[in-house]
Amino acid sequence: MFGERLARDAALIQRTFDAVLGELESLDITRAMAWTTEGGKRLRGFLVLESARLHGVDEARAIWPATAIEALHAYSLVHDDLPCMDDDDLRRGRPTAHVKWDEGTAVLAGDALQSLAFELCTRPEVGSAEVRVALALTLAQAAGARGMVLGQALDIAAETAPEPLTLDQITHLQAGKTGALIEWSAAAGAVLAQADPTPLRQYARALGLAFQIADDILDVEGDAEKAGKRLQKDAGAGKATFVSLLGLDAARNRARDLVDQACTALAPYGASAETLKEAARFVIAREN
Amino acid sequence: MFGERLARDAALIQRTFDAVLGELESLDITRAMAWTTEGGKRLRGFLVLESARLHGVDEARAIWPATAIEALHAYSLVHDDLPCMDDDDLRRGRPTAHVKWDEGTAVLAGDALQSLAFELCTRPEVGSAEVRVALALTLAQAAGARGMVLGQALDIAAETAPEPLTLDQITHLQAGKTGALIEWSAAAGAVLAQADPTPLRQYARALGLAFQIADDILDVEGDAEKAGKRLQKDAGAGKATFVSLLGLDAARNRARDLVDQACTALAPYGASAETLKEAARFVIAREN
Repeated sequence: MFGERLARDAALIQRTFDAVLGELESLDITRAMAWTTEGGKRLRGFLVLESARLHGVDEARAIWPATAIEALHAYSLVHDDLPCMDDDDLRRGRPTAHVKWDEGTAVLAGDALQSLAFELCTRPEVGSAEVRVALALTLAQAAGARGMVLGQALDIAAETAPEPLTLDQITHLQAGKTGALIEWSAAAGAVLAQADPTPLRQYARALGLAFQIADDILDVEGDAEKAGKRLQKDAGAGKATFVSLLGLDAARNRARDLVDQACTALAPYGASAETLKEAARFVIAREN
Repeated sequence: MFGERLARDAALIQRTFDAVLGELESLDITRAMAWTTEGGKRLRGFLVLESARLHGVDEARAIWPATAIEALHAYSLVHDDLPCMDDDDLRRGRPTAHVKWDEGTAVLAGDALQSLAFELCTRPEVGSAEVRVALALTLAQAAGARGMVLGQALDIAAETAPEPLTLDQITHLQAGKTGALIEWSAAAGAVLAQADPTPLRQYARALGLAFQIADDILDVEGDAEKAGKRLQKDAGAGKATFVSLLGLDAARNRARDLVDQACTALAPYGASAETLKEAARFVIAREN
Protein backbone atom coordinates (compact mmCIF):
# COMPACT_ATOMS: atom_id res chain seq x y z
CA MET A 1 0.00 0.00 0.00
CA PHE A 2 2.66 2.48 1.09
CA GLY A 3 5.00 1.66 -1.81
CA GLU A 4 2.20 2.18 -4.36
CA ARG A 5 1.05 5.42 -2.74
CA LEU A 6 4.62 6.75 -2.61
CA ALA A 7 5.18 5.98 -6.31
CA ARG A 8 1.80 7.42 -7.30
CA ASP A 9 2.35 10.60 -5.26
CA ALA A 10 5.87 11.02 -6.65
CA ALA A 11 4.45 10.86 -10.19
CA LEU A 12 1.73 13.39 -9.33
CA ILE A 13 4.31 15.80 -7.89
CA GLN A 14 6.47 15.34 -10.98
CA ARG A 15 3.56 16.23 -13.27
CA THR A 16 2.93 19.34 -11.18
CA PHE A 17 6.60 20.37 -11.43
CA ASP A 18 6.48 19.75 -15.19
CA ALA A 19 3.46 22.05 -15.53
CA VAL A 20 4.80 24.80 -13.25
CA LEU A 21 8.40 24.81 -14.47
CA GLY A 22 7.24 24.46 -18.07
CA GLU A 23 5.77 27.97 -17.84
CA LEU A 24 9.17 29.56 -17.13
CA GLU A 25 11.57 31.00 -19.73
CA SER A 26 13.91 28.32 -21.05
CA LEU A 27 17.31 29.12 -19.51
CA ASP A 28 20.10 27.22 -17.77
CA ILE A 29 18.70 28.11 -14.35
CA THR A 30 15.18 26.93 -15.16
CA ARG A 31 16.65 23.72 -16.63
CA ALA A 32 18.73 23.34 -13.44
CA MET A 33 15.57 23.85 -11.35
CA ALA A 34 13.86 20.99 -13.21
CA TRP A 35 16.97 18.78 -13.01
CA THR A 36 17.25 19.28 -9.26
CA THR A 37 13.60 18.46 -8.60
CA GLU A 38 13.63 15.21 -10.66
CA GLY A 39 13.94 11.80 -8.98
CA GLY A 40 14.15 11.27 -5.26
CA LYS A 41 11.67 9.48 -3.04
CA ARG A 42 9.40 12.52 -2.55
CA LEU A 43 8.88 11.40 1.03
CA ARG A 44 8.05 14.95 2.21
CA GLY A 45 5.50 15.46 -0.55
CA PHE A 46 4.00 12.05 0.24
CA LEU A 47 3.64 13.09 3.91
CA VAL A 48 1.68 16.18 2.84
CA LEU A 49 -0.62 14.21 0.54
CA GLU A 50 -1.13 11.31 2.98
CA SER A 51 -1.79 13.55 6.01
CA ALA A 52 -4.25 15.47 3.82
CA ARG A 53 -6.05 12.22 2.89
CA LEU A 54 -6.29 11.39 6.59
CA HIS A 55 -8.23 14.64 7.04
CA GLY A 56 -10.39 14.22 3.96
CA VAL A 57 -8.69 17.13 2.16
CA ASP A 58 -9.03 17.11 -1.62
CA GLU A 59 -5.84 16.12 -3.44
CA ALA A 60 -6.37 19.06 -5.83
CA ARG A 61 -5.65 21.32 -2.83
CA ALA A 62 -2.90 19.25 -1.16
CA ILE A 63 -0.81 18.78 -4.30
CA TRP A 64 0.37 22.40 -4.09
CA PRO A 65 1.97 22.28 -0.60
CA ALA A 66 3.24 18.76 -1.49
CA THR A 67 5.04 20.17 -4.53
CA ALA A 68 6.11 23.23 -2.49
CA ILE A 69 7.92 21.15 0.13
CA GLU A 70 9.69 19.17 -2.59
CA ALA A 71 10.79 22.46 -4.20
CA LEU A 72 12.12 23.64 -0.85
CA HIS A 73 13.88 20.32 -0.25
CA ALA A 74 15.41 20.46 -3.75
CA TYR A 75 16.71 24.00 -3.08
CA SER A 76 18.38 22.75 0.12
CA LEU A 77 20.04 19.89 -1.78
CA VAL A 78 21.37 21.99 -4.66
CA HIS A 79 22.94 24.48 -2.21
CA ASP A 80 24.16 21.73 0.14
CA ASP A 81 25.98 20.05 -2.77
CA LEU A 82 27.95 23.23 -3.69
CA PRO A 83 31.77 23.09 -3.46
CA CYS A 84 31.68 25.62 -0.59
CA MET A 85 29.26 23.38 1.34
CA ASP A 86 29.38 19.55 1.14
CA ASP A 87 31.04 19.52 -2.30
CA ASP A 88 29.12 16.60 -3.78
CA ASP A 89 29.10 15.89 -7.49
CA LEU A 90 26.57 13.05 -7.39
CA ARG A 91 22.96 13.18 -6.21
CA ARG A 92 20.15 10.72 -6.92
CA GLY A 93 22.65 8.95 -9.19
CA ARG A 94 23.21 11.97 -11.47
CA PRO A 95 25.68 14.88 -11.66
CA THR A 96 24.74 17.75 -9.34
CA ALA A 97 23.66 21.07 -10.87
CA HIS A 98 26.96 22.89 -10.29
CA VAL A 99 28.76 20.05 -12.13
CA LYS A 100 26.27 19.87 -15.02
CA TRP A 101 26.12 23.67 -15.34
CA ASP A 102 28.16 25.89 -13.02
CA GLU A 103 28.12 27.19 -9.45
CA GLY A 104 26.35 30.46 -10.24
CA THR A 105 23.54 28.57 -11.98
CA ALA A 106 23.26 26.18 -9.01
CA VAL A 107 23.05 29.08 -6.51
CA LEU A 108 20.34 30.85 -8.54
CA ALA A 109 18.37 27.66 -9.24
CA GLY A 110 18.26 26.97 -5.49
CA ASP A 111 17.25 30.56 -4.76
CA ALA A 112 14.41 30.40 -7.28
CA LEU A 113 13.25 27.02 -5.94
CA GLN A 114 12.92 28.53 -2.47
CA SER A 115 10.77 31.36 -3.86
CA LEU A 116 8.76 28.81 -5.83
CA ALA A 117 8.01 26.85 -2.64
CA PHE A 118 6.33 29.92 -1.12
CA GLU A 119 4.52 30.68 -4.36
CA LEU A 120 3.11 27.13 -4.58
CA CYS A 121 1.82 26.95 -1.01
CA THR A 122 0.10 30.34 -1.23
CA ARG A 123 -1.72 29.65 -4.52
CA PRO A 124 -5.47 30.29 -4.42
CA GLU A 125 -6.19 26.58 -5.17
CA VAL A 126 -4.79 25.62 -1.73
CA GLY A 127 -7.82 26.95 0.14
CA SER A 128 -8.79 29.84 2.39
CA ALA A 129 -6.42 32.73 3.06
CA GLU A 130 -6.10 31.50 6.67
CA VAL A 131 -4.85 28.09 5.53
CA ARG A 132 -2.49 29.51 2.89
CA VAL A 133 -0.90 32.02 5.25
CA ALA A 134 -0.51 29.38 7.99
CA LEU A 135 1.31 27.12 5.52
CA ALA A 136 3.60 29.95 4.37
CA LEU A 137 4.42 31.23 7.87
CA THR A 138 5.20 27.78 9.26
CA LEU A 139 7.21 26.91 6.14
CA ALA A 140 9.30 30.07 6.56
CA GLN A 141 9.94 29.18 10.20
CA ALA A 142 10.81 25.56 9.35
CA ALA A 143 13.16 26.56 6.52
CA GLY A 144 15.01 29.47 8.10
CA ALA A 145 17.60 30.20 10.77
CA ARG A 146 15.55 28.53 13.52
CA GLY A 147 14.90 25.42 11.42
CA MET A 148 16.64 23.81 8.46
CA VAL A 149 19.33 26.46 7.89
CA LEU A 150 20.13 26.48 11.62
CA GLY A 151 20.78 22.73 11.38
CA GLN A 152 22.99 23.20 8.32
CA ALA A 153 24.94 25.98 10.06
CA LEU A 154 25.46 23.87 13.18
CA ASP A 155 26.63 21.05 10.91
CA ILE A 156 29.23 23.33 9.30
CA ALA A 157 30.32 24.72 12.69
CA ALA A 158 30.77 21.14 13.97
CA GLU A 159 33.40 20.47 11.31
CA THR A 160 35.82 22.93 12.91
CA ALA A 161 34.71 22.52 16.54
CA PRO A 162 37.49 21.42 18.93
CA GLU A 163 35.32 18.59 20.38
CA PRO A 164 32.94 16.20 18.59
CA LEU A 165 29.25 16.98 19.20
CA THR A 166 27.36 15.28 22.01
CA LEU A 167 24.19 13.26 21.48
CA ASP A 168 22.06 16.23 22.62
CA GLN A 169 23.85 18.56 20.22
CA ILE A 170 23.42 16.18 17.27
CA THR A 171 19.76 15.72 18.13
CA HIS A 172 19.30 19.54 18.16
CA LEU A 173 21.20 19.86 14.86
CA GLN A 174 19.14 17.17 13.15
CA ALA A 175 15.84 18.46 14.49
CA GLY A 176 16.63 21.52 12.37
CA LYS A 177 18.47 20.04 9.42
CA THR A 178 16.03 17.25 8.50
CA GLY A 179 13.38 17.36 11.21
CA ALA A 180 11.80 20.75 10.57
CA LEU A 181 10.70 20.06 6.97
CA ILE A 182 9.47 16.54 7.82
CA GLU A 183 7.39 17.98 10.66
CA TRP A 184 5.97 20.69 8.41
CA SER A 185 5.06 18.06 5.79
CA ALA A 186 3.24 15.73 8.16
CA ALA A 187 1.42 18.61 9.88
CA ALA A 188 0.30 20.07 6.55
CA GLY A 189 -2.75 17.79 6.27
CA ALA A 190 -4.07 19.02 9.60
CA VAL A 191 -3.28 22.64 8.69
CA LEU A 192 -5.15 22.23 5.38
CA ALA A 193 -8.17 20.90 7.32
CA GLN A 194 -7.77 23.51 10.10
CA ALA A 195 -7.57 20.59 12.57
CA ASP A 196 -5.21 20.04 15.53
CA PRO A 197 -1.78 19.12 14.13
CA THR A 198 -0.40 17.79 17.47
CA PRO A 199 -0.57 14.00 16.76
CA LEU A 200 0.99 14.46 13.30
CA ARG A 201 3.72 16.70 14.75
CA GLN A 202 4.58 14.06 17.37
CA TYR A 203 4.62 11.39 14.68
CA ALA A 204 6.89 13.53 12.51
CA ARG A 205 9.34 14.39 15.28
CA ALA A 206 10.00 10.73 16.00
CA LEU A 207 10.01 9.92 12.27
CA GLY A 208 12.49 12.71 11.48
CA LEU A 209 14.96 11.52 14.08
CA ALA A 210 14.57 7.88 12.97
CA PHE A 211 15.16 9.07 9.39
CA GLN A 212 18.43 10.74 10.36
CA ILE A 213 19.69 7.78 12.40
CA ALA A 214 18.89 5.56 9.39
CA ASP A 215 20.84 8.00 7.20
CA ASP A 216 23.85 7.72 9.50
CA ILE A 217 23.60 3.90 9.40
CA LEU A 218 23.31 4.06 5.60
CA ASP A 219 26.39 6.28 5.44
CA VAL A 220 28.39 3.50 7.17
CA GLU A 221 26.77 0.37 5.77
CA GLY A 222 25.06 1.40 2.56
CA ASP A 223 25.76 0.68 -1.08
CA ALA A 224 26.74 3.91 -2.89
CA GLU A 225 25.20 2.68 -6.13
CA LYS A 226 21.80 2.01 -4.56
CA ALA A 227 21.99 5.21 -2.53
CA GLY A 228 22.82 7.26 -5.63
CA LYS A 229 25.24 9.43 -3.67
CA ARG A 230 28.66 9.35 -2.08
CA LEU A 231 28.74 7.47 1.24
CA GLN A 232 31.17 7.12 4.17
CA LYS A 233 31.35 10.92 4.15
CA ASP A 234 30.86 11.49 7.86
CA ALA A 235 33.20 8.76 9.11
CA GLY A 236 35.81 10.00 6.64
CA ALA A 237 35.43 13.55 7.93
CA GLY A 238 35.69 12.40 11.57
CA LYS A 239 32.22 13.84 12.27
CA ALA A 240 30.19 12.66 15.24
CA THR A 241 27.02 10.86 14.13
CA PHE A 242 24.36 8.79 15.89
CA VAL A 243 26.37 5.73 14.83
CA SER A 244 29.74 7.01 16.10
CA LEU A 245 28.17 8.02 19.43
CA LEU A 246 25.84 5.06 20.03
CA GLY A 247 27.42 2.27 18.02
CA LEU A 248 25.61 0.47 15.18
CA ASP A 249 23.45 -1.86 17.29
CA ALA A 250 22.23 0.79 19.72
CA ALA A 251 21.58 3.20 16.81
CA ARG A 252 19.46 0.54 15.11
CA ASN A 253 17.50 -0.09 18.34
CA ARG A 254 16.99 3.64 18.86
CA ALA A 255 15.64 4.03 15.32
CA ARG A 256 13.23 1.12 15.91
CA ASP A 257 12.01 2.65 19.20
CA LEU A 258 11.41 5.94 17.43
CA VAL A 259 9.36 4.24 14.72
CA ASP A 260 7.23 2.64 17.48
CA GLN A 261 6.77 6.09 19.07
CA ALA A 262 5.81 7.55 15.69
CA CYS A 263 3.16 4.85 15.18
CA THR A 264 1.79 5.28 18.72
CA ALA A 265 1.34 9.03 18.11
CA LEU A 266 -1.07 8.17 15.29
CA ALA A 267 -3.46 6.27 17.60
CA PRO A 268 -6.18 8.99 17.37
CA TYR A 269 -6.48 8.23 13.64
CA GLY A 270 -7.10 4.49 14.11
CA ALA A 271 -6.73 2.19 11.11
CA SER A 272 -6.83 5.01 8.55
CA ALA A 273 -3.23 5.92 9.51
CA GLU A 274 -1.82 2.54 8.40
CA THR A 275 -0.05 3.99 5.36
CA LEU A 276 1.75 6.59 7.52
CA LYS A 277 2.83 3.80 9.88
CA GLU A 278 4.18 1.84 6.92
CA ALA A 279 6.06 4.97 5.89
CA ALA A 280 7.73 5.09 9.31
CA ARG A 281 8.80 1.47 9.03
CA PHE A 282 10.08 2.09 5.51
CA VAL A 283 12.23 5.00 6.64
CA ILE A 284 14.54 2.76 8.67
CA ALA A 285 14.59 -0.08 6.11
CA ARG A 286 15.40 1.96 2.98
CA GLU A 287 18.58 1.64 0.94
CA ASN A 288 18.69 5.22 -0.38
CA MET B 1 11.08 65.86 3.78
CA PHE B 2 12.12 62.82 1.74
CA GLY B 3 15.66 62.72 3.19
CA GLU B 4 14.36 62.83 6.77
CA ARG B 5 11.73 60.17 6.10
CA LEU B 6 14.27 57.90 4.43
CA ALA B 7 16.69 58.19 7.38
CA ARG B 8 13.92 57.72 9.93
CA ASP B 9 12.52 54.68 8.10
CA ALA B 10 16.00 53.16 7.74
CA ALA B 11 16.49 53.47 11.52
CA LEU B 12 13.09 51.89 12.19
CA ILE B 13 13.90 48.97 9.89
CA GLN B 14 17.28 48.56 11.58
CA ARG B 15 15.64 48.37 15.02
CA THR B 16 13.27 45.72 13.68
CA PHE B 17 16.16 43.68 12.30
CA ASP B 18 17.98 44.03 15.64
CA ALA B 19 14.95 42.66 17.49
CA VAL B 20 14.23 39.83 15.04
CA LEU B 21 17.82 38.71 14.45
CA GLY B 22 18.62 39.12 18.16
CA GLU B 23 16.28 36.20 18.89
CA LEU B 24 18.35 33.76 16.80
CA GLU B 25 21.16 31.54 18.07
CA SER B 26 24.52 33.32 17.94
CA LEU B 27 26.42 31.69 15.09
CA ASP B 28 28.50 32.85 12.12
CA ILE B 29 25.49 32.63 9.82
CA THR B 30 23.24 34.71 12.07
CA ARG B 31 26.06 37.27 12.45
CA ALA B 32 26.44 37.25 8.65
CA MET B 33 22.67 37.81 8.31
CA ALA B 34 22.92 40.90 10.55
CA TRP B 35 26.06 42.16 8.76
CA THR B 36 24.41 41.85 5.35
CA THR B 37 21.29 43.72 6.40
CA GLU B 38 23.17 46.67 7.96
CA GLY B 39 23.66 49.94 6.08
CA GLY B 40 22.24 50.69 2.68
CA LYS B 41 19.63 53.24 1.73
CA ARG B 42 16.64 51.00 2.57
CA LEU B 43 14.85 52.49 -0.43
CA ARG B 44 12.62 49.43 -0.83
CA GLY B 45 11.60 49.48 2.83
CA PHE B 46 10.94 53.21 2.58
CA LEU B 47 8.65 52.57 -0.41
CA VAL B 48 6.62 50.09 1.66
CA LEU B 49 6.31 52.47 4.61
CA GLU B 50 5.58 55.55 2.49
CA SER B 51 2.98 53.82 0.29
CA ALA B 52 1.37 52.52 3.49
CA ARG B 53 1.22 56.08 4.91
CA LEU B 54 -0.43 57.21 1.69
CA HIS B 55 -3.22 54.69 2.42
CA GLY B 56 -3.48 55.48 6.13
CA VAL B 57 -2.05 52.09 7.13
CA ASP B 58 -0.58 51.92 10.62
CA GLU B 59 3.23 51.84 10.69
CA ALA B 60 3.07 48.99 13.25
CA ARG B 61 1.64 46.86 10.42
CA ALA B 62 3.76 48.19 7.53
CA ILE B 63 7.10 47.82 9.31
CA TRP B 64 6.96 44.02 8.82
CA PRO B 65 6.72 43.94 5.02
CA ALA B 66 9.20 46.88 4.96
CA THR B 67 11.73 44.79 6.90
CA ALA B 68 10.80 41.72 4.83
CA ILE B 69 11.70 43.37 1.52
CA GLU B 70 15.03 44.58 2.95
CA ALA B 71 15.76 41.00 4.12
CA LEU B 72 14.97 39.76 0.63
CA HIS B 73 17.12 42.48 -0.96
CA ALA B 74 19.99 41.64 1.44
CA TYR B 75 19.76 37.95 0.48
CA SER B 76 20.03 38.89 -3.19
CA LEU B 77 23.13 41.02 -2.50
CA VAL B 78 25.00 38.43 -0.42
CA HIS B 79 24.45 35.79 -3.13
CA ASP B 80 25.18 38.24 -5.97
CA ASP B 81 28.53 39.11 -4.36
CA LEU B 82 29.71 35.45 -4.24
CA PRO B 83 32.83 34.51 -6.23
CA CYS B 84 30.72 32.32 -8.54
CA MET B 85 28.43 35.29 -9.28
CA ASP B 86 29.69 38.92 -9.44
CA ASP B 87 32.70 38.22 -7.17
CA ASP B 88 32.58 41.45 -5.19
CA ASP B 89 34.51 41.87 -1.95
CA LEU B 90 33.16 45.31 -1.08
CA ARG B 91 29.52 46.28 -0.43
CA ARG B 92 28.19 49.37 1.32
CA GLY B 93 31.84 50.22 2.06
CA ARG B 94 32.53 47.02 4.02
CA PRO B 95 33.86 43.52 3.25
CA THR B 96 31.18 41.20 1.84
CA ALA B 97 30.04 38.21 3.94
CA HIS B 98 32.02 35.58 2.02
CA VAL B 99 35.18 37.65 2.61
CA LYS B 100 34.50 38.32 6.30
CA TRP B 101 33.42 34.71 6.93
CA ASP B 102 33.44 32.17 4.10
CA GLU B 103 31.37 31.20 1.06
CA GLY B 104 29.33 28.50 2.81
CA THR B 105 28.31 30.99 5.51
CA ALA B 106 27.38 33.56 2.84
CA VAL B 107 25.22 31.05 0.94
CA LEU B 108 23.38 29.96 4.11
CA ALA B 109 22.97 33.52 5.42
CA GLY B 110 21.34 34.48 2.12
CA ASP B 111 19.13 31.39 2.18
CA ALA B 112 17.95 32.16 5.71
CA LEU B 113 17.32 35.82 4.82
CA GLN B 114 15.01 34.73 2.02
CA SER B 115 13.04 32.51 4.45
CA LEU B 116 12.99 35.40 6.93
CA ALA B 117 11.44 37.70 4.34
CA PHE B 118 8.45 35.36 3.97
CA GLU B 119 8.20 34.92 7.73
CA LEU B 120 8.14 38.69 8.32
CA CYS B 121 5.47 39.48 5.76
CA THR B 122 3.15 36.71 6.98
CA ARG B 123 3.35 37.65 10.69
CA PRO B 124 -0.05 38.12 12.39
CA GLU B 125 0.77 41.81 13.11
CA VAL B 126 0.62 42.56 9.36
CA GLY B 127 -3.17 42.30 9.21
CA SER B 128 -5.83 39.98 7.88
CA ALA B 129 -4.97 36.58 6.41
CA GLU B 130 -6.05 37.94 2.98
CA VAL B 131 -3.48 40.76 3.17
CA ARG B 132 -0.69 38.55 4.48
CA VAL B 133 -1.16 35.87 1.85
CA ALA B 134 -1.37 38.47 -0.93
CA LEU B 135 1.96 39.94 0.24
CA ALA B 136 3.60 36.49 0.41
CA LEU B 137 2.32 35.30 -2.96
CA THR B 138 3.30 38.47 -4.81
CA LEU B 139 6.69 38.51 -3.05
CA ALA B 140 7.35 34.91 -4.15
CA GLN B 141 6.45 35.86 -7.73
CA ALA B 142 8.61 39.01 -7.64
CA ALA B 143 11.61 37.18 -6.16
CA GLY B 144 11.62 33.98 -8.21
CA ALA B 145 12.34 32.75 -11.70
CA ARG B 146 9.81 35.11 -13.32
CA GLY B 147 11.12 38.14 -11.37
CA MET B 148 14.43 38.95 -9.69
CA VAL B 149 16.19 35.62 -10.24
CA LEU B 150 15.13 35.65 -13.90
CA GLY B 151 16.85 39.04 -14.25
CA GLN B 152 19.99 37.74 -12.56
CA ALA B 153 20.03 34.65 -14.79
CA LEU B 154 19.60 36.77 -17.94
CA ASP B 155 22.44 38.97 -16.68
CA ILE B 156 24.74 35.94 -16.31
CA ALA B 157 23.67 34.55 -19.71
CA ALA B 158 24.47 37.94 -21.30
CA GLU B 159 28.11 37.63 -20.24
CA THR B 160 28.69 34.72 -22.59
CA ALA B 161 26.20 35.70 -25.31
CA PRO B 162 27.72 36.13 -28.80
CA GLU B 163 26.02 39.54 -29.27
CA PRO B 164 25.56 42.39 -26.76
CA LEU B 165 21.96 42.72 -25.53
CA THR B 166 19.54 45.07 -27.25
CA LEU B 167 17.69 47.86 -25.44
CA ASP B 168 14.53 45.70 -25.26
CA GLN B 169 16.48 42.80 -23.80
CA ILE B 170 18.18 44.98 -21.17
CA THR B 171 14.84 46.52 -20.26
CA HIS B 172 13.34 42.99 -19.81
CA LEU B 173 16.39 41.92 -17.75
CA GLN B 174 16.22 44.94 -15.47
CA ALA B 175 12.45 44.74 -15.03
CA GLY B 176 13.25 41.45 -13.30
CA LYS B 177 16.57 42.13 -11.67
CA THR B 178 15.76 45.40 -9.91
CA GLY B 179 12.24 46.26 -11.07
CA ALA B 180 10.25 43.40 -9.53
CA LEU B 181 11.18 44.12 -5.90
CA ILE B 182 10.76 47.88 -6.33
CA GLU B 183 7.28 47.32 -7.77
CA TRP B 184 6.35 44.96 -4.92
CA SER B 185 7.56 47.54 -2.38
CA ALA B 186 5.60 50.45 -3.82
CA ALA B 187 2.45 48.36 -4.27
CA ALA B 188 2.64 47.03 -0.69
CA GLY B 189 0.86 50.05 0.81
CA ALA B 190 -2.16 49.50 -1.45
CA VAL B 191 -2.09 45.74 -0.75
CA LEU B 192 -2.01 46.43 3.00
CA ALA B 193 -5.06 48.69 2.60
CA GLN B 194 -6.75 46.29 0.13
CA ALA B 195 -6.90 49.19 -2.33
CA ASP B 196 -6.15 49.27 -6.08
CA PRO B 197 -2.33 49.06 -6.52
CA THR B 198 -2.37 50.19 -10.18
CA PRO B 199 -1.11 53.81 -9.74
CA LEU B 200 1.67 52.69 -7.39
CA ARG B 201 2.66 49.88 -9.77
CA GLN B 202 2.90 52.34 -12.67
CA TYR B 203 4.95 54.71 -10.50
CA ALA B 204 7.27 51.84 -9.48
CA ARG B 205 7.79 50.53 -13.01
CA ALA B 206 9.03 53.91 -14.20
CA LEU B 207 11.01 54.41 -10.98
CA GLY B 208 12.69 50.98 -11.22
CA LEU B 209 13.86 51.61 -14.76
CA ALA B 210 15.09 55.12 -13.85
CA PHE B 211 16.90 53.57 -10.89
CA GLN B 212 18.75 51.11 -13.14
CA ILE B 213 19.68 53.73 -15.72
CA ALA B 214 21.03 55.87 -12.87
CA ASP B 215 23.01 52.83 -11.67
CA ASP B 216 24.55 52.43 -15.12
CA ILE B 217 25.46 56.14 -15.17
CA LEU B 218 26.93 55.80 -11.68
CA ASP B 219 28.98 52.81 -12.81
CA VAL B 220 30.63 55.01 -15.46
CA GLU B 221 30.80 58.38 -13.70
CA GLY B 222 30.58 57.64 -9.99
CA ASP B 223 33.06 57.91 -7.14
CA ALA B 224 33.79 54.39 -5.79
CA GLU B 225 34.35 55.77 -2.29
CA LYS B 226 30.96 57.48 -2.16
CA ALA B 227 29.29 54.50 -3.82
CA GLY B 228 30.83 52.08 -1.30
CA LYS B 229 31.32 49.45 -4.01
CA ARG B 230 33.49 48.67 -7.02
CA LEU B 231 32.55 50.70 -10.12
CA GLN B 232 33.31 50.57 -13.85
CA LYS B 233 32.42 46.87 -13.66
CA ASP B 234 30.13 46.74 -16.65
CA ALA B 235 32.25 48.77 -19.04
CA GLY B 236 35.26 46.70 -17.98
CA ALA B 237 33.37 43.49 -18.69
CA GLY B 238 32.21 44.78 -22.10
CA LYS B 239 28.57 44.42 -21.03
CA ALA B 240 25.82 46.30 -22.78
CA THR B 241 24.17 48.85 -20.46
CA PHE B 242 21.71 51.69 -20.93
CA VAL B 243 24.74 54.00 -21.15
CA SER B 244 26.62 51.89 -23.72
CA LEU B 245 23.47 51.61 -25.86
CA LEU B 246 22.07 55.14 -25.53
CA GLY B 247 25.13 57.24 -24.69
CA LEU B 248 25.42 59.27 -21.47
CA ASP B 249 23.28 62.25 -22.49
CA ALA B 250 20.38 60.23 -23.89
CA ALA B 251 20.52 57.90 -20.85
CA ARG B 252 20.25 60.93 -18.56
CA ASN B 253 17.29 62.28 -20.55
CA ARG B 254 15.57 58.90 -20.51
CA ALA B 255 15.98 58.68 -16.72
CA ARG B 256 14.50 62.19 -16.33
CA ASP B 257 11.52 61.29 -18.56
CA LEU B 258 10.91 58.18 -16.48
CA VAL B 259 10.93 60.21 -13.27
CA ASP B 260 8.32 62.52 -14.82
CA GLN B 261 6.21 59.47 -15.76
CA ALA B 262 6.57 58.10 -12.23
CA CYS B 263 5.34 61.40 -10.75
CA THR B 264 2.43 61.62 -13.20
CA ALA B 265 1.27 58.12 -12.19
CA LEU B 266 0.80 59.42 -8.64
CA ALA B 267 -1.74 62.08 -9.71
CA PRO B 268 -4.69 60.23 -8.05
CA TYR B 269 -3.01 60.78 -4.67
CA GLY B 270 -2.69 64.57 -5.05
CA ALA B 271 -0.35 66.46 -2.74
CA SER B 272 0.01 63.61 -0.25
CA ALA B 273 2.30 61.77 -2.69
CA GLU B 274 4.94 64.54 -2.60
CA THR B 275 7.45 62.41 -0.65
CA LEU B 276 7.23 59.58 -3.19
CA LYS B 277 7.80 62.13 -5.97
CA GLU B 278 10.88 63.41 -4.14
CA ALA B 279 12.05 59.80 -3.88
CA ALA B 280 11.82 59.46 -7.66
CA ARG B 281 13.88 62.64 -8.15
CA PHE B 282 16.43 61.41 -5.60
CA VAL B 283 16.88 58.10 -7.40
CA ILE B 284 18.49 59.74 -10.44
CA ALA B 285 20.54 62.24 -8.39
CA ARG B 286 22.10 59.83 -5.86
CA GLU B 287 25.81 59.10 -5.57
CA ASN B 288 25.52 55.57 -4.16
